[in-house]
Amino acid sequence: MDARTHDDFTRRLTAAATETEALLAELLGDAPLPGEIARPPRLLAAMRHAVLGGGKRLRPFLVVESAALFGAARKGALLTGAALECLHCYSLVHDDLPSMDNDDLRRGRPTVHKAYDDATAILAGDSLLTLAFDILARPEVHSDPLVRSTLVLELARASGLGGMAGGQMLDLAAEGRFEARRAQSQDEILTLQAMKTGALLRFACRAGAILGRADDKTLAALDTFGAVIGKAFQIADDLLDVEGDTATLGKAAGKDAAAGKATLVSILGIDGAHKRLDGLIVEGEAALAPFGAKADILRAAARFIAARKT
Amino acid sequence: MDARTHDDFTRRLTAAATETEALLAELLGDAPLPGEIARPPRLLAAMRHAVLGGGKRLRPFLVVESAALFGAARKGALLTGAALECLHCYSLVHDDLPSMDNDDLRRGRPTVHKAYDDATAILAGDSLLTLAFDILARPEVHSDPLVRSTLVLELARASGLGGMAGGQMLDLAAEGRFEARRAQSQDEILTLQAMKTGALLRFACRAGAILGRADDKTLAALDTFGAVIGKAFQIADDLLDVEGDTATLGKAAGKDAAAGKATLVSILGIDGAHKRLDGLIVEGEAALAPFGAKADILRAAARFIAARKT
Repeated sequence: MDARTHDDFTRRLTAAATETEALLAELLGDAPLPGEIARPPRLLAAMRHAVLGGGKRLRPFLVVESAALFGAARKGALLTGAALECLHCYSLVHDDLPSMDNDDLRRGRPTVHKAYDDATAILAGDSLLTLAFDILARPEVHSDPLVRSTLVLELARASGLGGMAGGQMLDLAAEGRFEARRAQSQDEILTLQAMKTGALLRFACRAGAILGRADDKTLAALDTFGAVIGKAFQIADDLLDVEGDTATLGKAAGKDAAAGKATLVSILGIDGAHKRLDGLIVEGEAALAPFGAKADILRAAARFIAARKT
Repeated sequence: MDARTHDDFTRRLTAAATETEALLAELLGDAPLPGEIARPPRLLAAMRHAVLGGGKRLRPFLVVESAALFGAARKGALLTGAALECLHCYSLVHDDLPSMDNDDLRRGRPTVHKAYDDATAILAGDSLLTLAFDILARPEVHSDPLVRSTLVLELARASGLGGMAGGQMLDLAAEGRFEARRAQSQDEILTLQAMKTGALLRFACRAGAILGRADDKTLAALDTFGAVIGKAFQIADDLLDVEGDTATLGKAAGKDAAAGKATLVSILGIDGAHKRLDGLIVEGEAALAPFGAKADILRAAARFIAARKT
């Protein structure tokens, strides 16, 4: 990646994050919308705590840049990205609960159940999940209702029983929560990760193509790229858990080893994991080949995700 | 209500419940759908525990009978009803959690967190909520994607921050969970109940009109009827909490008084509450007047809800 592309990438990542933050603040405003009866202040405050003021907004960025490949309207892509971010943040709030991963710290701040209480955190997560689908169904996302209902269906599949939530279930099982702890095979780890973290990143890339009404072949290219990004993100995450420190991460490091959890890093070793990451970058480049230079920002995103330090 | 209408009502309520149960069992089958990676057995079993084998299926029935007023396809109404039931059951699973209402018993069976564990119950609730939107976005619900995305948007508004989840937040606050306990005014109780239980029943009636592509005026009539049903349901519920017993209810009775929670019954008295119920029945009849005899089943439903014993 040349220096100009890198600067361009950084500038666009920052711009999308700034726009997403503003949009999320607006979506979590005080005034009830049509069909809402009231917005209880404590619940709204907990939702804001969960969503505002942090994060790279990587998922919204991937939606925006994927949509840009097809010249889809930026406003609809930003709304779709904001919906995805609400869903991502709900999963963090629930995963942090004492009965789940029991984390006190997230992005360097108290988790929602620490700042409020468990019941409020459960309801804030539930409401963020619901808000995600609320946003996707709004006419401002896309003038064609088929695009909107496709986004709803795809996000639901990516995040429910057969996607993210199911992945968290497998993750708890992998920590030996429900039965005797057992070694996990590489295939089992890949399935778990494809569900727990891969599915939403894959949706982010597919969503851009759906907003742009791409044909099936082009959608498949974005799907492949999204799957690669998902795998790379997870290996980078597992490496950070081994190589990073709690202060830089803003969350606890070394948790996988402490939980006795198998990851690709524990199977492949640190060098092997870095090699796997390099291979994924090549795969991602290949998927984007048909788009030529137009996809340089997405290429840079893949490299950024593989090399990230927080 | 004459005897024939009553028999007809009972037969149709039972038929809709049977069809809904079969549909829910099918929706919670073992095989992953397109876009799903795997269905983890423990999570799926907890979702089935939450949804299958019980309940009057009152919300699906209201969808089916409202849709029938407009000659809308029964299959789409049943799917919409099943989605609504998934959402209703998610709310029961989360409300029963130790950090929320801490209930061990539901429909005479152990609650999900007792039968499994807290983490599994949280994820089962999350996945049922997600499944509700998944179902509504499917082409089988209605051939017009605008109908599907409208259903998604309306259900999200009815069940999120400004609806059901917000109502549960207010309910916890009314029990003095977050601040000094305080007396609630009748207005505050009505807002809380319109959110916590009213919004979904109202959606059930609106959904039928949306599936039937009713005009605005007709939709407004169903909306009024749905709001009346919601109020009647809640007063009947509060009366049952005072007059019923745990064995018949299949859940704990006398909880409101124990929690020091104000209800319309504690404000109006038992006789006053019964009078309010009678007034609501009259209001509901008035809203249905334009439909003539076609709406006899919905009229019977209103009386059934007001007089229910479990």
